[in-house]
Amino acid sequence: MSDPFDFDRESAVTELGPGRFAGLISARWNVGQVPNGGYVMAIALRALGASFAAPARDPLSATAHFLRPAAPGPVEITVERIKEGKTVVTAEARLVQSGREVTRVLASLGRLDAAEGPRFIDAQPPPMPPPEQSLPRPAGMPDIELARRFEQRFDPATVGWATATATAAAARQDAAPAPARAEIRAYQRFVDGRPPDLLSLPLFADSLPPPVFAVLTPGWVPTVELTVHFRARPAPGWLRSQFRTRFVFGGFLEEDGELWDESGQLVAQSRQLAMVPNRAFR
Amino acid sequence: MSDPFDFDRESAVTELGPGRFAGLISARWNVGQVPNGGYVMAIALRALGASFAAPARDPLSATAHFLRPAAPGPVEITVERIKEGKTVVTAEARLVQSGREVTRVLASLGRLDAAEGPRFIDAQPPPMPPPEQSLPRPAGMPDIELARRFEQRFDPATVGWATATATAAAARQDAAPAPARAEIRAYQRFVDGRPPDLLSLPLFADSLPPPVFAVLTPGWVPTVELTVHFRARPAPGWLRSQFRTRFVFGGFLEEDGELWDESGQLVAQSRQLAMVPNRAFR
Repeated sequence: MSDPFDFDRESAVTELGPGRFAGLISARWNVGQVPNGGYVMAIALRALGASFAAPARDPLSATAHFLRPAAPGPVEITVERIKEGKTVVTAEARLVQSGREVTRVLASLGRLDAAEGPRFIDAQPPPMPPPEQSLPRPAGMPDIELARRFEQRFDPATVGWATATATAAAARQDAAPAPARAEIRAYQRFVDGRPPDLLSLPLFADSLPPPVFAVLTPGWVPTVELTVHFRARPAPGWLRSQFRTRFVFGGFLEEDGELWDESGQLVAQSRQLAMVPNRAFR
Repeated sequence: MSDPFDFDRESAVTELGPGRFAGLISARWNVGQVPNGGYVMAIALRALGASFAAPARDPLSATAHFLRPAAPGPVEITVERIKEGKTVVTAEARLVQSGREVTRVLASLGRLDAAEGPRFIDAQPPPMPPPEQSLPRPAGMPDIELARRFEQRFDPATVGWATATATAAAARQDAAPAPARAEIRAYQRFVDGRPPDLLSLPLFADSLPPPVFAVLTPGWVPTVELTVHFRARPAPGWLRSQFRTRFVFGGFLEEDGELWDESGQLVAQSRQLAMVPNRAFR
């Protein structure tokens, strides 16, 4: 437990035996009483990565189904090695607390920088003002422990819902504004200076307020499933991130995310399916 | 085996015992020698759905990792019921052929129409000419058995790569055109008149030529992982679909899809991570 950084210390796993690992879920990545899903997923990825010999253990694609809320405290991780191919290995992790499975993670791993091949990129990093012209976490966002682990700088254009005063919000309603976009753009980095890496990307993909808060009153939005595609090792510095929800209906919503590093490289895409409790529009 | 429609007959499973099912993978959904991944996923979903009492067995989110190519012939499906919640159940299916697992599917199921709640939709069906002004499958697309199971009508704006003659293609190269978009838009329905349903959505999400063929010479694009979000029961008729790839680099690409029904309702979103062999640009 001598890791210098919060995330490494608090996502570490110890091998108990073949395919069995112990970890300790910290309360310091909580959203309310519940540890963040991306953080729990990162713990699973540590166990998955430790189960295969380097160098074929970069995560490529990982899907977590959140069965019940995790809790701060001990967790046991069981890894099943499903298939070991030459270029891709597939495995899954079961995270168990107090005898009950809380999260199942299915993932493929391999070497991210092995193949170069053709390059076609039809996208740009999210358009944002520079970090120094962006906003620290607005007071109108939920006050959660998780947020204290990060520096966050928000694109002002995307967080009016969290910066407007009650009066201003009422005025906006009178003016019958066009429906807002459910989108949040922000720069993110660890507050303790830890550089981003592949393992931390699920956490960065799940650490901003749900963009649906722009159109629905904030509240608990339980994730059913979160998938992250890992596309490149992030360069040190800010991660420029964008999360957007386009479809809220039938009790569910999707949330699509992109994480770009300071070199202008896409490093991850994320998508989750979450449940929307019956809740008022803002 | 008295189902009137191809898809139902050829994705049927028989329960062998608790959590054990037998199926028969048909060669009639092949891409070359390999059964289509969405078709294989649908067989898994049948076994998953049959493992839970109605009504909580609509698929909500399903992720398949393709471990090795499936082959036409018998398949045994083992289902593990991971968690049975009040509103969501989570389970996984292992598809085994000749003693070797070919595909692992992790899924959450529930009731798609149980919750109404808030509705916010910030999207439109893909812009396309009506089916009668769209193109039948162009001769320049790969001639595969799978395509004979569908009627397909392509938006001409998205399949120039498959309709242009060799001369026209050469002329385009001389003119140094702007990089194409890797996008395909098409209407799809079963050729035998079977209406679309939830179970068939993974197949529709994986049955058009990869949009990357617009920018790279066509060839085998092995899917590592395919996730489908099931959002609504499709109305009978055409499925209006759009698939796009924005990031080809480092040997991998993503493919994002949307399926909309004739009533103008989004019914599914899909995303896959696939490998790009080293291959020439068109």
